[in-house]
Amino acid sequence: MKNLVIRNIRPMGGETTSVTIRDGRIAGYGQTIEDRVETMDGGGAILIPGLVEAHTHMDKTLLGMGWYRNEVGPRLIDKIENERAQRRILDIEPARQSARQAVLAASLGVTHIRTHVDVDTEVGVAGIEGILETRERYRDIVDIELVAFPQSGMLIRPGTVELMERALQLGAQVVGGLDPSAIDRDPKGHLDVVFGLAERYGVPVDIHLHEPAELGAFSMELIIERTKALGLQGKVTVSHAFCLGMSDQDYVAALIEALADAQIHILTTAPASRPAPAVKRLVEAGIVVAAGSDGVRDTWGPYNNPDMLERAFLVGLRNNLRRDDEVALALDTCTYGGARMMGLEGYGLQPGDRADLVLLDGETLAEAVVSRRPRKMVLKSGKITARDGIALAEVP
Amino acid sequence: MKNLVIRNIRPMGGETTSVTIRDGRIAGYGQTIEDRVETMDGGGAILIPGLVEAHTHMDKTLLGMGWYRNEVGPRLIDKIENERAQRRILDIEPARQSARQAVLAASLGVTHIRTHVDVDTEVGVAGIEGILETRERYRDIVDIELVAFPQSGMLIRPGTVELMERALQLGAQVVGGLDPSAIDRDPKGHLDVVFGLAERYGVPVDIHLHEPAELGAFSMELIIERTKALGLQGKVTVSHAFCLGMSDQDYVAALIEALADAQIHILTTAPASRPAPAVKRLVEAGIVVAAGSDGVRDTWGPYNNPDMLERAFLVGLRNNLRRDDEVALALDTCTYGGARMMGLEGYGLQPGDRADLVLLDGETLAEAVVSRRPRKMVLKSGKITARDGIALAEVP
Repeated sequence: MKNLVIRNIRPMGGETTSVTIRDGRIAGYGQTIEDRVETMDGGGAILIPGLVEAHTHMDKTLLGMGWYRNEVGPRLIDKIENERAQRRILDIEPARQSARQAVLAASLGVTHIRTHVDVDTEVGVAGIEGILETRERYRDIVDIELVAFPQSGMLIRPGTVELMERALQLGAQVVGGLDPSAIDRDPKGHLDVVFGLAERYGVPVDIHLHEPAELGAFSMELIIERTKALGLQGKVTVSHAFCLGMSDQDYVAALIEALADAQIHILTTAPASRPAPAVKRLVEAGIVVAAGSDGVRDTWGPYNNPDMLERAFLVGLRNNLRRDDEVALALDTCTYGGARMMGLEGYGLQPGDRADLVLLDGETLAEAVVSRRPRKMVLKSGKITARDGIALAEVP
Repeated sequence: MKNLVIRNIRPMGGETTSVTIRDGRIAGYGQTIEDRVETMDGGGAILIPGLVEAHTHMDKTLLGMGWYRNEVGPRLIDKIENERAQRRILDIEPARQSARQAVLAASLGVTHIRTHVDVDTEVGVAGIEGILETRERYRDIVDIELVAFPQSGMLIRPGTVELMERALQLGAQVVGGLDPSAIDRDPKGHLDVVFGLAERYGVPVDIHLHEPAELGAFSMELIIERTKALGLQGKVTVSHAFCLGMSDQDYVAALIEALADAQIHILTTAPASRPAPAVKRLVEAGIVVAAGSDGVRDTWGPYNNPDMLERAFLVGLRNNLRRDDEVALALDTCTYGGARMMGLEGYGLQPGDRADLVLLDGETLAEAVVSRRPRKMVLKSGKITARDGIALAEVP
């Protein structure tokens, strides 16, 4: 395999240099004269590590399926029930739909995805099987990590726990959970099952927690207790965590301290219409904060896009991060934050790290985030996967 | 002048038809066989009236000036004082900068702009003169309405009131105001001057009201009282109105009723990090709601973009408007809402309305909003001003 040298790039928007890539990893920076070298011009682009999509739902995006006219009711349960119905009506085929999202994400510079995949008594593990097919098919352009996700509830739908186990046996790498009180009506029961599966299968945990204010905070306390009791520090993520945006600031401060102590990660989509975790405050408390798109163009809503530069823009807007160092922090949730949450090996721009790289058009990191122009180049394990916003892989 | 027929367009995303344009106005829809007709193919695009940018600050955008590294402090006054200093340091020339924004906005389908222009004892009316130059220069591509805006305070900086009068004499069409308590420290005094100028010069009012919760609500009460006392119903806009997002729902309900009664308009940027007016609730109460970008890439912050489809997307996200009819409502704040706020004559898609038109790429209105692809065509008074996202006018 030839070495690849990309000249005229600026790591994280800093000084211009060149990067040498060997055997799929970063060999070093600056001039190196070697045999068997292919060189390219980076055109002065900013070099960043691959964008990390740390929370999405690839099994149910409607990408490429024609416009879905959303007429769904306002409650969470309306959206869950509508989605189960539409899955049949619209034929939302998980392998095909996740492939479309994988290729689109790759074109946008995403090199790693954690996707929550529905497991329920209607669809069984068909979603898991579909995403596993996509994971294998596109393994050269994006790493996909599956969360077995009981979207329709677990204890309220007998048979779901067994399907969750089946999903983990098939290859799901993370056990998911969902609103232990609001959906499953049994916070202790729900979390005991989730953490029991984590212990039995030796997998991390990622729990959707939409529950607001004091209700969500109570669930979070239960999650913290179990994380510490089972020694799962660093292996547990709470997604959404709207309760961290509640008005009782003393309670929020206590929760943040406890989350940091238990090394629990927080995933945010930076929702503009909900109370939400304060990203900068969490990071300053030592908590890993990652970001995700959530469902992309699905029956829940039309807005989300797998563009993690757009997500950084939305994280910045939601958290009023205006200064350049603050915009860089917003971007960090879409790169290093996600990588730390997922425990990615060899992620970054250091020599020895995997050559999962994106070349961004922009004068500074902040300008790249606010402009969100097509990615000039995307590499996965040192191979080019997209140029000027166009993925080289084919989409079904 | 030849008539222009654009075939194969879908007004507001509806049935495919053709539109005939004559003497700068919409003559009608459907097949018409006439002499002296030039025909074009709209390619199935959605036809909407021109986008309305109802609140921006064209005199101080940094577009085209190289990246400004933002290191500004967190308070409102930090941003105001930094901006006054940077105006000199960076040479932010109003005529040049507003021209850049005018052309960029036109390329994005904006046909009408209300811009607040700084008037203070340092810059005097130089900003007003610069924007008047741009207004004249680009009158064929965009209508620009100027608000004389006392950004640095009015009563706390003696001489400002006289400059505000001078601005109105020069051609500013609206009198502005700003946080009567928080900045000018004299709510009665500030508003008496603003409304006095409105009465004397027969111009509408548009007041920046960032004041939070009960403080802002008190200012709003004073604004409502003066609007009714002077018979200025339908002529007053409150911009931002963060106080309408406060937690005291009874007080908000009373304010909404009083605003509707006084026919006061609300302008929102749909800020993700602040309490904000609930767009749907206001519209349902009969209040005109318009949207704006606020300052575009300026010393205040890097995020804003003059793309009013992006603004509709942000209005939708901020207000959790997910259903297709709700996304259309978000877009409405960027079209008809702004037009009603500004009292535009002949705005719309009816025969006889001005042919200020945008052709959008998208299957439905909602898809056009969430995708925000380059505008296929923009027309101002029946003449093409931009194609495929590129403005035909030159930028300085």
